[in-house]
Amino acid sequence: MDSATLPLYHQLATRYRRAIDDGALTPGDRMPSVRQLMERHGVSLSTALQACRELEREGLLEARPRSGYFVRRRPQPARAAPIAEPEARLPDPAQYVGIHQRISAILARSHQHAVRVSLAGLSAASDLYPVAALNAATTRALRRHPQLYGRTPEAEGHPELRAALARHALLSQINLAPEDIVVTHGCTEALHLALRAVAGPGDVIAVESPTYYGLLQILEGLGMRALEIPCSPHSGISLEALELAAQTYDSIKAVVVVPTLQNPLGSIMPDANKAALVRWCETRGIVLIEDDCFSALADGETGPAAAKSWDQSGNVIYCASLHKFLAPGMRLGWIAAGRWTARVAMLKFSQSRPNEVLAQLAVADFMGSGAFARHLRRLRDQLRIQREWMAEAIAGGFPAGTRLSTPAGGMHLWVELPAGIDSETLFELALRQGIHVAPGVMFSNSNRFDHFLRVNCGAPRSALLEDALRQLAAVANGLAAARPEPAPNVTLT
Amino acid sequence: MDSATLPLYHQLATRYRRAIDDGALTPGDRMPSVRQLMERHGVSLSTALQACRELEREGLLEARPRSGYFVRRRPQPARAAPIAEPEARLPDPAQYVGIHQRISAILARSHQHAVRVSLAGLSAASDLYPVAALNAATTRALRRHPQLYGRTPEAEGHPELRAALARHALLSQINLAPEDIVVTHGCTEALHLALRAVAGPGDVIAVESPTYYGLLQILEGLGMRALEIPCSPHSGISLEALELAAQTYDSIKAVVVVPTLQNPLGSIMPDANKAALVRWCETRGIVLIEDDCFSALADGETGPAAAKSWDQSGNVIYCASLHKFLAPGMRLGWIAAGRWTARVAMLKFSQSRPNEVLAQLAVADFMGSGAFARHLRRLRDQLRIQREWMAEAIAGGFPAGTRLSTPAGGMHLWVELPAGIDSETLFELALRQGIHVAPGVMFSNSNRFDHFLRVNCGAPRSALLEDALRQLAAVANGLAAARPEPAPNVTLT
Repeated sequence: MDSATLPLYHQLATRYRRAIDDGALTPGDRMPSVRQLMERHGVSLSTALQACRELEREGLLEARPRSGYFVRRRPQPARAAPIAEPEARLPDPAQYVGIHQRISAILARSHQHAVRVSLAGLSAASDLYPVAALNAATTRALRRHPQLYGRTPEAEGHPELRAALARHALLSQINLAPEDIVVTHGCTEALHLALRAVAGPGDVIAVESPTYYGLLQILEGLGMRALEIPCSPHSGISLEALELAAQTYDSIKAVVVVPTLQNPLGSIMPDANKAALVRWCETRGIVLIEDDCFSALADGETGPAAAKSWDQSGNVIYCASLHKFLAPGMRLGWIAAGRWTARVAMLKFSQSRPNEVLAQLAVADFMGSGAFARHLRRLRDQLRIQREWMAEAIAGGFPAGTRLSTPAGGMHLWVELPAGIDSETLFELALRQGIHVAPGVMFSNSNRFDHFLRVNCGAPRSALLEDALRQLAAVANGLAAARPEPAPNVTLT
Repeated sequence: MDSATLPLYHQLATRYRRAIDDGALTPGDRMPSVRQLMERHGVSLSTALQACRELEREGLLEARPRSGYFVRRRPQPARAAPIAEPEARLPDPAQYVGIHQRISAILARSHQHAVRVSLAGLSAASDLYPVAALNAATTRALRRHPQLYGRTPEAEGHPELRAALARHALLSQINLAPEDIVVTHGCTEALHLALRAVAGPGDVIAVESPTYYGLLQILEGLGMRALEIPCSPHSGISLEALELAAQTYDSIKAVVVVPTLQNPLGSIMPDANKAALVRWCETRGIVLIEDDCFSALADGETGPAAAKSWDQSGNVIYCASLHKFLAPGMRLGWIAAGRWTARVAMLKFSQSRPNEVLAQLAVADFMGSGAFARHLRRLRDQLRIQREWMAEAIAGGFPAGTRLSTPAGGMHLWVELPAGIDSETLFELALRQGIHVAPGVMFSNSNRFDHFLRVNCGAPRSALLEDALRQLAAVANGLAAARPEPAPNVTLT
């Protein structure tokens, strides 16, 4: 997968991304017009447009009606450097995950303290969700179906929800029939089923590094081995590292990725990388499992395309949920398992039977109304404001040398503390003050991220939150000050 | 486990059970009074009382207020013999379950026809459930907690439901704290978690034979091996066969039983057997997994004690659900996993995260009201009427030689057709007439039950149902008539 084979629009986007990164184009600058791009670079209209749209999706450009594209105010706060690209390295050996004890201990610790401010989870404040409308839809559904609780639910999900989800998938450029979809208990169950469908105990699964701890827990529970592949804060999983890994391990069964707003990095894979990854998995006979929980929260009106949208052969298993963008309390997820659909449906039936119907009906009702798109727009805007404010607060208050991810969407930041500050110690000290954060050790089977933190930006700015961030910064600064001086170099004579 | 070690009250009950079976005591006869029993047999008041209660629980006696115990009208319909005890035999070898294809094919067949009358499932007609009260409780819960859908649910279940379930467990004589309980997606997920917690792929699990096909599907999905142990229509799993099996297989990891209203046999294990089984598992170092979905539907005011009630060491994992007796549409189950509680909670979290809260609150509300006990009483009475009517109809219409289970509770009958009638053929022919039954091959990894049927009695008597039973009988009679004559014995001279 070398760059010469990447499509033209991607090469063009890379060139302008670099110009923005280098400061040749600064926030507020007008991008060359599409016509200018065509002339300057000898490309077609469609290539020029695609390049601009890719940069827009990454949050680097914004389209102003009737004026063209402009460089966006950089979400990167002035005083914090972006998270560095991972070093080029051979992947760690595939290993059985032994993370549960660690995660359990961390979660258990948080239950032993009165948490005033939780920055550890990944959901927005409850009043950013359309709870009143969903409550009303629930009551309506009960009136429409008064015998609902007395009946065994439809296998694989209620037809109304499956139809609504198939419509929703079009936003990610995926074409699905309602019958391609199985409704699950959240994305967690969807991932669990996907992995059970295609792999067994001892099998090697390639995952992003860092990755969501829930995925590591699933792998541990199923006795599978995780092969951590370096992941870039800008472009997601490294295709080069993946290729290297496949040369070392000829038995990789599946790759699990979060192409849009990776958890915890926040990266969005460029379209060309997604297409290349889908093609590569297909050629190699490796299943691609896509976790797409966050794409509805990506900045901009049109979300990024899912990797699944490039799937020609049913080799991509698509998993998603409503928790992050619609209703954390409903626990609805779904899976479109391509050529494993029948097997996944069987495993779902034998593992937990069909989901209850009430929430499915309420959601189908809401998703069929204009209120759904309005809600998403409001939520995205609000999250962007919260994210940018928190990024500024962390950049301004945390020790010098702190680095930050600045995702173009979603509700979390990934924070790299200066070397020598252990984030588990920070977690402990913050917890004593009632502040709950997620230390980096949760996101890998290795210790590579022991000086990282994931911080939730789901809550609106408030005095309580400002105060908590100040306290967190004070703890981090205390730890920075307490670091031992590096030992002086001793020159042997 | 020989009978001399069984408690006195059990021996006394056995003596009177025999008297009733032999016709020495007939329906309507008054049982000797407790005082008479004490004098005749030289036993204590408590022993005499326990013996009567055991027979009452088995449906053989009924207590009439201020008059003592009477022999009940035998639910066994006059013209059908009871299902025979299984032959004493060595268990089949433990084997990987290969049942899913068969079950899927059977389920798929039923989707290809318009089913007018389903006798295949295991739930009561929807209006036998308290749907109006549960709907009202749901609306109340939404008013009390308007932000519910916007919040991530409590891990392990909502405290109000866990408290209600701990109270409910007292009816089965189990003492639990709310913290001992993890709320699950039905009993299926509970069993799935229990098995994952204590065993891995390739491990041997002893199960009843016949058994619920859902359990066989779980074992197949998890790659475990099922060891089928003969099960009596009167007393449940054979302890003798289990002991024999353990002498053959020293690696049995767990035994899964339905002590009360076994599915599909309908048997209720006598208390002494339950106690002996719990003790035996403890001594052998084998985990006992109890599936207790039906006990609230056992005839009589006080349900049978759960095997879990004899558990002293946490070796019994108790699984149950609300589907059968309260709300098939809510998909709520729970698990009390004894010494595996922490591991089960971890697996539940990594497999599907906590359940949504709305139904949990509605159920807790309803279970806390007097309406709950009234509902259970009404449902039990109605099911008894339906069961007895259907048993009469089947006994009266099916071919000579048909045998029937007559469970003292629940909503299903187990029907043994005369030799040579294949129930899968019956299933096919009935389906063409829009009638759906569950053929016996679904309930075992062997073909031992290929001339059995499980018939649901969840619906009230109706012209439609009468008609369906007549058609079913006609199909069975047609198959009986078409059986080839047995080849004449040829005497070689």
